[in-house]
Amino acid sequence: MKQVARKVVWEGELFDVVVERWGAKVREIVEHGGSVTIVPVDREGRIVLTRQFRESARATLLELPAGMLDPGEIPLAAAQRELAEETGLHGGTWRQLRTVQPSPGFVREPVTIFVAEDLDEGERDLDAGEEIEVVRLTAAQLEAELGSLEDAKTLVGVLLYLRERA
Amino acid sequence: MKQVARKVVWEGELFDVVVERWGAKVREIVEHGGSVTIVPVDREGRIVLTRQFRESARATLLELPAGMLDPGEIPLAAAQRELAEETGLHGGTWRQLRTVQPSPGFVREPVTIFVAEDLDEGERDLDAGEEIEVVRLTAAQLEAELGSLEDAKTLVGVLLYLRERA
Repeated sequence: MKQVARKVVWEGELFDVVVERWGAKVREIVEHGGSVTIVPVDREGRIVLTRQFRESARATLLELPAGMLDPGEIPLAAAQRELAEETGLHGGTWRQLRTVQPSPGFVREPVTIFVAEDLDEGERDLDAGEEIEVVRLTAAQLEAELGSLEDAKTLVGVLLYLRERA
Repeated sequence: MKQVARKVVWEGELFDVVVERWGAKVREIVEHGGSVTIVPVDREGRIVLTRQFRESARATLLELPAGMLDPGEIPLAAAQRELAEETGLHGGTWRQLRTVQPSPGFVREPVTIFVAEDLDEGERDLDAGEEIEVVRLTAAQLEAELGSLEDAKTLVGVLLYLRERA
């Protein structure tokens, strides 16, 4: 099956919407440039998360630090930039854990998940108007919080990280 | 912070796009009616997955059975309908595992994940043009396949289910 027609029906700042024809199928697709998520571990072995109000979900969510790629940016650079901005953590040792698709039925948004360890502390650099609380949890505390996590990329990163340590 | 303005900028079959103003922030949001995902366990203890080409991801993905809510449908009814259509499995014992947000930065799509056990076998009922392969894996085989899973809701469902059994 090949894509035979394609039309951009909405262009936004964060994503576009395209309608594609694949044989007899019509697919509405949200095209996003891609995102990164980090499992950051501080020098005391605590996992560093963020808590912020998410307008789209109408809820305050506890999440792993995350953000979107700038145009032309590679995932590792975006992940290091986002982590430093949101938490001040920088340096350290980085490895790629997994790339996931959050909602492959209608969204194209590759999300690359990293683990960052032996991080150095530093100053945060939030955008104007960003209100992000930093939350540090030991692995045992994070296990106890698993039931309250709603963000899928956070659950994937946390569950894969905890499996490695088990 | 309250939402002070809202405009629908694109209306599709599967989702709409809205632009909302929250104080000084402008948010582009994909509004989707919600989805369901099932961790189905057959009478031999195997987990039942599906493999299909996902146009949005340009890839063939191994996923848990899933689908979207019909208008007015409750998640459990949608999950039982989708599982029967895609795999023929029906009946059995159902429980809700978790509701997640796949991409809360810009998508509102609650995904309710169920576990279904003691299922009865039956006939599939695919939509015209749907090509979905059914794949049954023991828990040990699924553990060995974890590295090849890319779909976030599938990873969340599988990892939470495997944790329960550990």
